[in-house]
Formats: sequence, structure tokens, C-alpha cells
Amino acid sequence: MIYADNAATSPLDPEIFPAMKEFLLHDFSNPSQPYSFSRKSRKAIADSRERIAHCINAQPDEIFFTSGGSESDNWAVKSSGRQRIITSAVEHKAVLKSCHASSSSVKEIPVDSSCTVITSSLLDALNECGSPAFVSVMLANNETGAIQPVKEIADISHRHGAIFHTDAVQALGHIPVDVKELGVDMLSGSSHKFNGPRGVGFLYVRRGISIRPFVDGGSQESGMRAGTENTAGIVGMSLALANNCRDIQRNQSHLLTLENILLDELRRNNIDFIHNGNKTLPGVLSLSFRNDDGERILHRLDLNGICISTGSACDGMNHNVSHVIRSMNIPPEYARGTVRISFGKYNTEDDAKIIADSLVKIIPIR
Amino acid sequence: MIYADNAATSPLDPEIFPAMKEFLLHDFSNPSQPYSFSRKSRKAIADSRERIAHCINAQPDEIFFTSGGSESDNWAVKSSGRQRIITSAVEHKAVLKSCHASSSSVKEIPVDSSCTVITSSLLDALNECGSPAFVSVMLANNETGAIQPVKEIADISHRHGAIFHTDAVQALGHIPVDVKELGVDMLSGSSHKFNGPRGVGFLYVRRGISIRPFVDGGSQESGMRAGTENTAGIVGMSLALANNCRDIQRNQSHLLTLENILLDELRRNNIDFIHNGNKTLPGVLSLSFRNDDGERILHRLDLNGICISTGSACDGMNHNVSHVIRSMNIPPEYARGTVRISFGKYNTEDDAKIIADSLVKIIPIR
Repeated sequence: MIYADNAATSPLDPEIFPAMKEFLLHDFSNPSQPYSFSRKSRKAIADSRERIAHCINAQPDEIFFTSGGSESDNWAVKSSGRQRIITSAVEHKAVLKSCHASSSSVKEIPVDSSCTVITSSLLDALNECGSPAFVSVMLANNETGAIQPVKEIADISHRHGAIFHTDAVQALGHIPVDVKELGVDMLSGSSHKFNGPRGVGFLYVRRGISIRPFVDGGSQESGMRAGTENTAGIVGMSLALANNCRDIQRNQSHLLTLENILLDELRRNNIDFIHNGNKTLPGVLSLSFRNDDGERILHRLDLNGICISTGSACDGMNHNVSHVIRSMNIPPEYARGTVRISFGKYNTEDDAKIIADSLVKIIPIR
Repeated sequence: MIYADNAATSPLDPEIFPAMKEFLLHDFSNPSQPYSFSRKSRKAIADSRERIAHCINAQPDEIFFTSGGSESDNWAVKSSGRQRIITSAVEHKAVLKSCHASSSSVKEIPVDSSCTVITSSLLDALNECGSPAFVSVMLANNETGAIQPVKEIADISHRHGAIFHTDAVQALGHIPVDVKELGVDMLSGSSHKFNGPRGVGFLYVRRGISIRPFVDGGSQESGMRAGTENTAGIVGMSLALANNCRDIQRNQSHLLTLENILLDELRRNNIDFIHNGNKTLPGVLSLSFRNDDGERILHRLDLNGICISTGSACDGMNHNVSHVIRSMNIPPEYARGTVRISFGKYNTEDDAKIIADSLVKIIPIR
């Protein structure tokens, strides 16, 4: 099997498993308890918070652990308290649906054909707002890998008194993320997108930004997110992020090589396709094949033991063209033939060659 | 070390670890994806849902996976849509705080000295309600183990048009729980309280009861709770619950033996204490020692390598007498000296003897 759907979920970094096992089987204590046995798990959580903060240039008390990216997005959007919300048309549904669930005044900023948010539209939307808004724009798109100009968007938002959140779920661990450099107020992360375990994530909240608790109850996470801590998950997530951040240059260069092998092979065989996006995440390829069908390609590759995606994993059962592809105004003869191939750090050059060869066999040459 | 704080969190059932490991390391696929590789994790989630439904006599489509008991409680309380809320004074803070966060009309029903909800007060509260209420009363209390007359409370609530939720976090896997027999509309469960992993739980919602999504986004959990599924956690939880339910009679009898060993030894040594509660969870002992201090006892036992608790784990850093103990009107000379010793299925008779001997040494005889 060749797994090339790392943007949907990524294989667990085997280096982090022994630490997770330790906290699952042996150091199982409730970190809130005052006896000695709880010291190790309490320290492990504090260390994990520090490790994650370090990876994104934040302070430990700005990191709040959650159950994953969707929860982080929901929390950020739903607790801002702002009546007017501005977001982009290509956000993940965790952001889009949360926006519409919490306000009747939501403006979705369009993107251009490279899936990049049109900042002049953001400016217009901010100028039209009667009161300071909440703005949420993702750092990198999950379907196309398109990296948004978040630093610029955050800056524009702040000049209009807005609170700015970015869904960095797809980007974290794959490109350098520095919350101070980006100037964001809140940032969502999800462990399983950067080779950590599933069921755990975090929300960065800049000091000075006030949010409401998402889960009420015990005093965990400074009273902002109740529930006995998932120590194994938290430790695993922090180690996975640290490993990915340590190797980010090497992984980027490796993934670029894989991208080029695949794209060169398709072009050499005169396959008619559009490579969506301009500046994209390393390893994430959104390809639209002319007069073809993404579903068909996915299932034909599946028969060859290759895992890729048509759109976002959350829409796996939805057979229409995704809201992201629709927003980009891809010519209709290409749009329906869109697939996402997302390489990860464990993919090899052979994987890229085999996928390219399979695509060449599956897709008719014109 | 002797771990006798199973009501705070319980050791992972080692039988379930191999299955968790499989889904952490090997079958890591995103269950929403349509390719063959995702079939196994999708089936594992379906099987887990069925396994849990079977344990509580529910249907699989009535089980919604969450990140834990606190989230389940928050979801149930916050999404009922009812303006008037009735709960008990001894609920877990995840319920109490959620009630007060979602309504300004919250009535807390008192308990008697055995920590049992006074049903006549519930009746009064329901009669005073102008509109149909939301009622939440726990199945068993986390500090005293007191089992509430939930069947009767659910029945009274329904006769007044109320929706009834029970926080069964402490009870599940320790006493038989049958949602049809109890007649509840919603029920919260938490994996780590019945020897499953932390960071996962579930909410039972009876068919016909409508709730709002807690996490918006992808279509997971029938569109009610978005987020890529924590397959390893879900599988681990379901196997842990099934194991505990299979052995429930044997475990109960074992735990009762441990309770009796400890209580007999304290009485034989003329220790002056109250055993709180009347009908309580097997293995959970809330003991109030005269003219003593729970903190002191906890720390002295800790020095002997014994883990117990003063109150709920979530209040571990809170040194006051808990809201539960206060509600029971325990004589003040006993209240401050309250500890919770909670045995689990892995404790031995020797553990009970050693804890009793340690208590006898620590607590002055009068």
C-alpha cells in the first residue's frame, strides 16, 4: 500500500509511541491529584505545553489543549463574542459552520483561482462592518495546500480593531509557524495532521485576548477547558510537533522532490491537468484532470493500493465538487476531475514514481 | 505503590492495549475516506458503537462519541434548549457549571445526609416550573459513590414534561446500567473511569430527543460532533466497558470484600469515623474522620506510597470542604476529615489491609 493522503491524517511518528505507551499503561495518574504519583503526568503536561509553545514562538500559558482541530476552531469562533464575523470562502467546515452557528452576520471573502484570499475584499468587508469584527482565515488550505498571506491579513484585521484567528491545522509541522511573526491572536492546531495521535489538538490564545470556556467543569487548562487531561495524547502531540519542526527543512526539500517526480512524469506523458494553487504546502498537490472524475481516479488508484483523496476527508462521503474547488472558479471541464495527493515525510521517491505511473495508465492521453 | 483512587481515574485494562496499539501505529486511516484502507477503522468505530450500545441496552445510532465525560455533560446540558434547569446540589462541576452557563433559572435539589437526592424537592421544583424543564441528576456521585434513585427521578421528570439527563460517568462499568430500565433521555459516559483510555467518552441520546451539535464541522457522528475520530481511543473505550460489564458481578463482590476488610479493621481499632452514603458504588468509600483533616490524611498516606483522594479530582487543588460534603450536612467535626478511598478491580485484599493499617497508625484513637 502507498499512503498519499497525509493531509487527511498522517501516520503516527513511531519515535513518539514509547512515551505514549508509558502514559497509557503505567503513569496513568490523574494530573490534578496532589499525591506524588501524579507529579510525573503533571510535569509531562507542563513540558508538553512548553514544547508546543516553543515550536510556535508562544508562551506556555497561551496554549490550551483540546480534543482536536475542529474543537479548537469551534472554540475560537464561538467564544469571541463579536457579532460580525469575516472569514474566507475556502475555510474548513469546522470554521465555516461555527461562524454561521454563532452569528447571522458572516461575510465570506472570495479567493482567486490559485485559492488565495483576495485581501482587497477583506478590506472592503472590514470597512463595511459597523463594529469590530472577528476574522478567521486559515494558514494553509486543506484541499489545495494554498498558503494564505496570514501576516498581511492579520495586520489589516488589527488595523480595523478585529480579533484575528487562523486555522493552522493543515500548516503546522509542515511550514514554519511563528505566532508573533504572523501577528495572530488565536491559532488552531491538530495533532494527527503532523504525525501525532488523533483526538488531541490545541488552541493558542495570545495573552490579553479574552475567551469564554468551551467545556465548563473542572479547573483544567486554567479553568478554560474542563476534563481530565489526555496525558498520552498531549505528550504524543507535543513530541510529534517537535520532531516535525526539527526536521522541517529536510522534510520540505524531500517533499518537493516527490512533487517534482510526480508532476514531471505527468507532463512528460502529456496528461492534461491543472496544478491548483500557487504557493502551497510542501507535498500537497491538488490536481484537476480534464474531462475526468476525481471519484473515478481515486477508486482506480485504490485498486492499485494507493490512497489519495478527492477533497477534504470530512467530505469523503459527499460526491459533489467541494466548496473550495467551486470558489476557485476552475474551468468546469477540469473541476470535476480534481484529486488531492498529499505526501508525507515517510513517503519515498518510489511512491511518487508508482503513483505517477498509475495515473498515466488510468488517465487517457489527449 | 497502592493505587486506591480509581474514582479519579482508573488504570488502563492491559487486555485492550494491543487493539489500541494497532489503531495508533498501523490502521491509522481517516475513517471518513472512501478507499479500502479506511474500511478497517470505519468498521472498528461501528463495532465500538455497537459494543457500547449493547452494554447499556441502547441502539448504536443513539451513541455519540465525545472527548470525555465533561464534554458529554456540557453537550447534554447546553443543547437541550430548555430555559428552566433542575439539577442536584451534588452534581459534578461539568454539569453544575454547564447548567449555570446556559440558564439563569437553575434550581439545585438538595440531598439528605446520605447524599441521596430528595425527590420531594424535585417534585416541588417541577411544579414551580412554568415551562417544561431540563433535569440532570447523576447516577452515582463521584465523591461519595452514592447511587441516586435515577429511575424514579426520570419517571417524575417525564411526568412533568421534562427532558432527563444522567451523568453516569462514575457508575458506568461498575454497576449495571440499562438506559431503557432507567428511562433516561441522555446519559454521559467517560472511558477513563472504567479502565479505558483518557480523552474519550460518549453521550447516549435516546431516539426522538433532538439536540444541537456541540462541535460544528465535518459529518462525523451523524453531523452532531465534528472532528476526525480518535479510533484507538474509541476502540479502547468500548473494549474496556465490555470487559467491565462482563465481569461486573465478580468485580462487585471483590470490591465489597475489600471495603469490608478496610471498614472492619478501622472499627476493630476504635477509629471514630462516619462512612458516608447509604447505597454506594462498590469500592468507593467516603470516610469522615472526627477532628481530622482530609489533606493531612492524604499526604500521610502518600508518604506510605498510597494514593487516595480528599474529594473530586477536579478539585484537587482546592483545599476547602467540597460542595458535596457541604450539601450533606455532615457534622462539622467530621466534615473536614473526609477522604475518598476508591478501590478498583486490580486492587487486592492486601491493598485494603495495608491501607487500613496505615490509617490506624495515622489517625489518633479516642
